[in-house]
Amino acid sequence: MVTSRWTAAPARQASLRRRGAVLERAILDAALEQLGTVGWNGLTMEGIAAAAQTGKAAVYRRWPSKEDLVADALQAGLPHIQDAPDLGSVREDLLALCVQARDAMYSRPGTALRSVIHECDPSQAERFHGVIFAGVVEPTVQLIREIIRRGIDRGEVRPDADNSYVLDVIPAMMMYRSKLCSSEWNGQEVEELIDRLMLPLLRPEGT
Amino acid sequence: MVTSRWTAAPARQASLRRRGAVLERAILDAALEQLGTVGWNGLTMEGIAAAAQTGKAAVYRRWPSKEDLVADALQAGLPHIQDAPDLGSVREDLLALCVQARDAMYSRPGTALRSVIHECDPSQAERFHGVIFAGVVEPTVQLIREIIRRGIDRGEVRPDADNSYVLDVIPAMMMYRSKLCSSEWNGQEVEELIDRLMLPLLRPEGT
Repeated sequence: MVTSRWTAAPARQASLRRRGAVLERAILDAALEQLGTVGWNGLTMEGIAAAAQTGKAAVYRRWPSKEDLVADALQAGLPHIQDAPDLGSVREDLLALCVQARDAMYSRPGTALRSVIHECDPSQAERFHGVIFAGVVEPTVQLIREIIRRGIDRGEVRPDADNSYVLDVIPAMMMYRSKLCSSEWNGQEVEELIDRLMLPLLRPEGT
Repeated sequence: MVTSRWTAAPARQASLRRRGAVLERAILDAALEQLGTVGWNGLTMEGIAAAAQTGKAAVYRRWPSKEDLVADALQAGLPHIQDAPDLGSVREDLLALCVQARDAMYSRPGTALRSVIHECDPSQAERFHGVIFAGVVEPTVQLIREIIRRGIDRGEVRPDADNSYVLDVIPAMMMYRSKLCSSEWNGQEVEELIDRLMLPLLRPEGT
């Protein structure tokens, strides 16, 4: 059935939009849930529609492909780290942030994201890498910068440590070791990353 | 034709073995060359045999699959960094080593290796990641350790810098930025990696 946007009454439109947002959320949730049970290769638009108790057309109307739908579902589902921890010292702040980043990596959507990248084809993988970069890496780097700047203001960190190489060390190490050494970054490893690498790197000159 | 190893004369065996090593080298070279022209998906055992001017059977006798053959060809073709540079200072040694590692990454076999990983399926990709780890990453980390230990002996590096977190920083950063930021690690970037990250990290306490 086709409904012209010109004939529908404004009140009806508003009501559809509300239903739309709720339905959209249900479809995104169903996509994540299905991804966890049947994997990327087993995932179909029909299966997602059924799990969300809607029709296939309602899914395709919003997302032209399962790739688009899954990218949105993962992006929406990933835990968002809102604020830089502010616990009074660079050590405690970086520790708390790394634990949050690690938890995001190993959350249900984070784990699903890695397994999708493992299963899908290379051009799709590139898109999902983009979801990781925009959804986890970039925000984390911004929060690391905030923590380091606060440390500089307190005299706890050397002033020239606010540079892109220093800011990239934590995400680079987390990606490298989880990929090449299958590290899951337990509490001890996170602590060693801060104590053996970040604190010596950040300490002011002469200390 | 089947030749029994018991009936062949020793002199004939020796001659066959020599021919074998030369032929093997020719097949490995042909595999790399074909990989550069037709890519992983276009690569066939027939095509490699033809390029090496031998029969398909001679190829299959040595490698049961193109995956095995390509893994060996890449492993054999990657530039091997033999010795840690010893130029008198940690800065010059690390700079020289990073340039060599970067050159290995962007050598013909290094570039072929990355494009194979991009094209092949995930279980094959895991194997080729292993080739990178064993062929480039592990040897580089060992050489970084050697440079750092020499720096500690000279009093140029703090003694507790010889730990796995510090040793992993260079490969982690090189992998991270080439993957997520498409960096090709030009001379300036390599220099900044050493000056903005490694030297502040390694300097002795009190300096």
